[in-house]
Amino acid sequence: MTRTGPGTPMGELFRQYWIPALLAEELPEDDCPPVRVKLLSERMIAFRDSAGRYGLIDEFCAHRGASLWFGRNEEGGLRCPYHGWKYDVTGEAVEIPSEPENSTFCAHVKLTSYPLVKIGDVLWTYMGAPEKQPPLPEFEFSLVPPEQTYTSKRWQECNWLQAFEGGIDSSHVSFLHSGGLKSDPLFKGTKGNEYNMGDLKPYFEVADFEGGLFVGARRNAEEDSYYWRITPWVMPCFTMVPPRGDHPVHGHFWIPIDDENCWAYSFDYHPVRALTAAEVQAMREGHGVHSDNIPGTYRPKANKDNDYLIDREAQKRGDTYSGVKGIAMQDASLQESMGPIVDRTKEMLVSADSGIIKARQKLKRAAEALRDKGITPPGVDPAHHRVRSAAVVLPRDASFIEACREDLSVREGVRQSSV
Amino acid sequence: MTRTGPGTPMGELFRQYWIPALLAEELPEDDCPPVRVKLLSERMIAFRDSAGRYGLIDEFCAHRGASLWFGRNEEGGLRCPYHGWKYDVTGEAVEIPSEPENSTFCAHVKLTSYPLVKIGDVLWTYMGAPEKQPPLPEFEFSLVPPEQTYTSKRWQECNWLQAFEGGIDSSHVSFLHSGGLKSDPLFKGTKGNEYNMGDLKPYFEVADFEGGLFVGARRNAEEDSYYWRITPWVMPCFTMVPPRGDHPVHGHFWIPIDDENCWAYSFDYHPVRALTAAEVQAMREGHGVHSDNIPGTYRPKANKDNDYLIDREAQKRGDTYSGVKGIAMQDASLQESMGPIVDRTKEMLVSADSGIIKARQKLKRAAEALRDKGITPPGVDPAHHRVRSAAVVLPRDASFIEACREDLSVREGVRQSSV
Amino acid sequence: MTRTGPGTPMGELFRQYWIPALLAEELPEDDCPPVRVKLLSERMIAFRDSAGRYGLIDEFCAHRGASLWFGRNEEGGLRCPYHGWKYDVTGEAVEIPSEPENSTFCAHVKLTSYPLVKIGDVLWTYMGAPEKQPPLPEFEFSLVPPEQTYTSKRWQECNWLQAFEGGIDSSHVSFLHSGGLKSDPLFKGTKGNEYNMGDLKPYFEVADFEGGLFVGARRNAEEDSYYWRITPWVMPCFTMVPPRGDHPVHGHFWIPIDDENCWAYSFDYHPVRALTAAEVQAMREGHGVHSDNIPGTYRPKANKDNDYLIDREAQKRGDTYSGVKGIAMQDASLQESMGPIVDRTKEMLVSADSGIIKARQKLKRAAEALRDKGITPPGVDPAHHRVRSAAVVLPRDASFIEACREDLSVREGVRQSSV
Repeated sequence: MTRTGPGTPMGELFRQYWIPALLAEELPEDDCPPVRVKLLSERMIAFRDSAGRYGLIDEFCAHRGASLWFGRNEEGGLRCPYHGWKYDVTGEAVEIPSEPENSTFCAHVKLTSYPLVKIGDVLWTYMGAPEKQPPLPEFEFSLVPPEQTYTSKRWQECNWLQAFEGGIDSSHVSFLHSGGLKSDPLFKGTKGNEYNMGDLKPYFEVADFEGGLFVGARRNAEEDSYYWRITPWVMPCFTMVPPRGDHPVHGHFWIPIDDENCWAYSFDYHPVRALTAAEVQAMREGHGVHSDNIPGTYRPKANKDNDYLIDREAQKRGDTYSGVKGIAMQDASLQESMGPIVDRTKEMLVSADSGIIKARQKLKRAAEALRDKGITPPGVDPAHHRVRSAAVVLPRDASFIEACREDLSVREGVRQSSV
Repeated sequence: MTRTGPGTPMGELFRQYWIPALLAEELPEDDCPPVRVKLLSERMIAFRDSAGRYGLIDEFCAHRGASLWFGRNEEGGLRCPYHGWKYDVTGEAVEIPSEPENSTFCAHVKLTSYPLVKIGDVLWTYMGAPEKQPPLPEFEFSLVPPEQTYTSKRWQECNWLQAFEGGIDSSHVSFLHSGGLKSDPLFKGTKGNEYNMGDLKPYFEVADFEGGLFVGARRNAEEDSYYWRITPWVMPCFTMVPPRGDHPVHGHFWIPIDDENCWAYSFDYHPVRALTAAEVQAMREGHGVHSDNIPGTYRPKANKDNDYLIDREAQKRGDTYSGVKGIAMQDASLQESMGPIVDRTKEMLVSADSGIIKARQKLKRAAEALRDKGITPPGVDPAHHRVRSAAVVLPRDASFIEACREDLSVREGVRQSSV
Repeated sequence: MTRTGPGTPMGELFRQYWIPALLAEELPEDDCPPVRVKLLSERMIAFRDSAGRYGLIDEFCAHRGASLWFGRNEEGGLRCPYHGWKYDVTGEAVEIPSEPENSTFCAHVKLTSYPLVKIGDVLWTYMGAPEKQPPLPEFEFSLVPPEQTYTSKRWQECNWLQAFEGGIDSSHVSFLHSGGLKSDPLFKGTKGNEYNMGDLKPYFEVADFEGGLFVGARRNAEEDSYYWRITPWVMPCFTMVPPRGDHPVHGHFWIPIDDENCWAYSFDYHPVRALTAAEVQAMREGHGVHSDNIPGTYRPKANKDNDYLIDREAQKRGDTYSGVKGIAMQDASLQESMGPIVDRTKEMLVSADSGIIKARQKLKRAAEALRDKGITPPGVDPAHHRVRSAAVVLPRDASFIEACREDLSVREGVRQSSV
């Protein structure tokens, strides 16, 4: 389940979906420098041509194999600087200067390429068979007006699955992020946080839906009520954190780079209002689900080479539960500490891990159904994308999945359901 | 013989002994930060709990595999910061917060653990079967009063065996360390050194004893006498340098980290007097058998990444025979230069290597006897630890092993036999 | 064809030739420090003894395997600092101090060694069977007076073959090096360059000769004439760039270090005049075919760890076609970008690659003829070395190989044929 290279069952599953390939900011203008992109163990080059078209093509020139990262992005194509072969955004060779005038050779040269489409702050790609290309994704965070949304990314040095599993694991918040609940400008100061910290033994209930799962974590609220935090998972790797008061809502994609690295895409958006300048500033500084990256890169300043700048005094005082600063890096540090690909034969799952257990089953079943019967997996249909997380107080006898049907759907002009 | 991971014959042999796991200074107070320890290819965490008890447990949480190095050391145990699972020094889970109040699950969760005991400046562990755990070690350097002893350690980037073999190889001293004999504050200025430098063709004689070997190197002294330097080896990897005048006596343990790295533990002690301030200062600065480490680490400042700061001018002048500064780094540089695990099919052993030859035979035989018949190997019994090195002048017709029986034993209140 | 370790067919082929082992400047005086040399995947030590004799011997002492790089170079030999074993330039042990006076052991100890001979600025070795050792090489650049020649080297982080193939690939010059043709002090300002840039579709003709190939690239010159640039390749890896006006002539050797690294030896010489101070200065600064190396090393300052200091603005302006500065690094960056050993099953060779195609065939045939029938390959005979490159304008109906027979031969006192 951890392997996503070409030809692997999980790799084929991932190749059914539109997935984030890079941030739009990485290709800021026409004819700007090309960017190396590695996804699902394939090495590619993304570029934006003179007409603003985006392309994602094989990294290596068809001629002798030089990297097109050194290419000249000019006049409608990317030109290999070795012998001047030039490709358009679809990977087709459009000029081979050394060939005779009347040669038809050029028409037969084509690099592997994938579509690259800007929606919101993200450039999305689809790496599967062209004839099965689904409609474009419709996640709310990428469709709201630009001033209502913010997306960042960071390199995480472990397999995508152990990163993703953190995203649907609501029970660790009361421990690992307990400091953040009190102090993070994008998390703090809500009634829900009080419920969260007041009950360290949440009860988990997981409900299926056509695109994935809703993972409900139930904690005691008042005498006659429960506080429910509901995390949607849209297959294969989209998750949303349950909201907190009127804070922007955040979520993640966990995109395999190769089997030992992934991109954590982290977004924040508000369904009905612009983000405030203070909120955007906090996101840029690496608060909330975002990270403070080394300038010019997407690697966090706190990383495994420097033990995540752990501060044992802050750990002792409880300012940060683990001594690592920032919610994103608290997760990343522990997930990376498991090793590049954790040995799951040694784990001991408990009732609080029921979301993880169900998600693995669903991924496995979907990959097998695709491989054996060609069945399109859940989450491909854009209708499956129009979900929300929710944090609500319900009567003790209510079923979260019935009571929250509306709360868990995108409703235009209506704010998130949040306590 | 170079492999010491779980299940290997030499690994099983090592698991019969108490061995140094870390320096006591690495866990300086109750509830201090835990420390990563890798020994015999096993990754573990050492910590000291609120009551001052020491523990050495599996590095990874039983739940999801997060590293307990990020753990919170508090109130009698080490708590995983991911979901709050807490372990005591024996590796037993003492709290699993997400479990229901009445759950008995916690009682069944236990991490692999080994005893960790402070004797002198060292924390010792025994990684074998609990039912075969021998009595604690009784090496003199760790039993004398604290002011009489000093221990350091350094990371050596090669297999333990080629490091150890340097420790019983008395013949290289007249070459590699000839500069040190003249200038090192912890070596210089003895009559013995004159004998050492005056005869570059020592004759070797190796004598068995119940715990290992005594390697005697005989050099001409006066007309009618020989200068004998006698190095004891207690199995599997304890060696002592023959003493020099009234200098403190030094020795080593060579402890496998994994098959390509080892710890060189280096001690200096005097059986009957306190170390002087000048001696301790010299040890701290990396003189004698000690090394000058990168602050906050146990890696020498002079290491293979910087060619051990070799000084070709000093080499040419003869200040340092190889151009590398410091006795410890002279050894380390050459032993590491052989490669992580030297190819012993290519070596050409000579008569001066008889100690090495006998030691290898003894290790091989002991590992086989253990594997095939369960025989407890030499050196496990603490009685075997009570040996000393010696440097003596004997009549030409004397047998060193008979003449020095007392000199080679620990005698309380009696100083080392040293010229 | 990419593998050159001991026992491989291409490795055996390389072992028929004298090849550059290091620059003479690396062993600047008698008894200077020894130098690590890795060639054809063999690790060796080069040194120059007290009498000025050069030696190339196995890196590791025959005794215990310590690296002789730490050796003391003194009194006619290199002494291992571990136990004092001493070797002469032929690898024979000349002293083993620990052995008894009357021992004959020393006479039987010999390290693998190869001859090392200074010709011009280069120290050459021959790593094959002694009985087949050919006469010394006679390349013109190494035989002209010292003031007429200059040689540098740089580490290239890819297989030798993809580096070499760039050396006989005249068609990339009009693209990758188009900036250099205009601005490089060692390339610019010739009539030939105008022809070069005026015709981007050169026609290639490849002619066999007893020592290798002549690769002719034909471009339009005037109405009735062609501009021919002719690159000789002497097997296995000597190439010369066609000359430009009265600039010094340059060329290369591509010498395998191991299968993923090679040395690019780059020379410049003028057959009939001294190099000017300005020319030598430009070479030292890394212009022309030379590189600007990290002081004390032969690694270029612009290398794959820093993306060759690519300057996208300079690329956009066209100052440098690929954005990488310097002709040598333009080649190196692209050749290294193909990966350590490019996957040749994926390439698409075109008519402009006919030199590369023929060269591969010739290498393959020669390696097979050697392996199967013991046939001495082309390029071993020093007579094959006495070739020149040429850049000439010929009538449109002339055959370059017939018209240039004299231009392509070394003619003492006659300058290169160059436009």
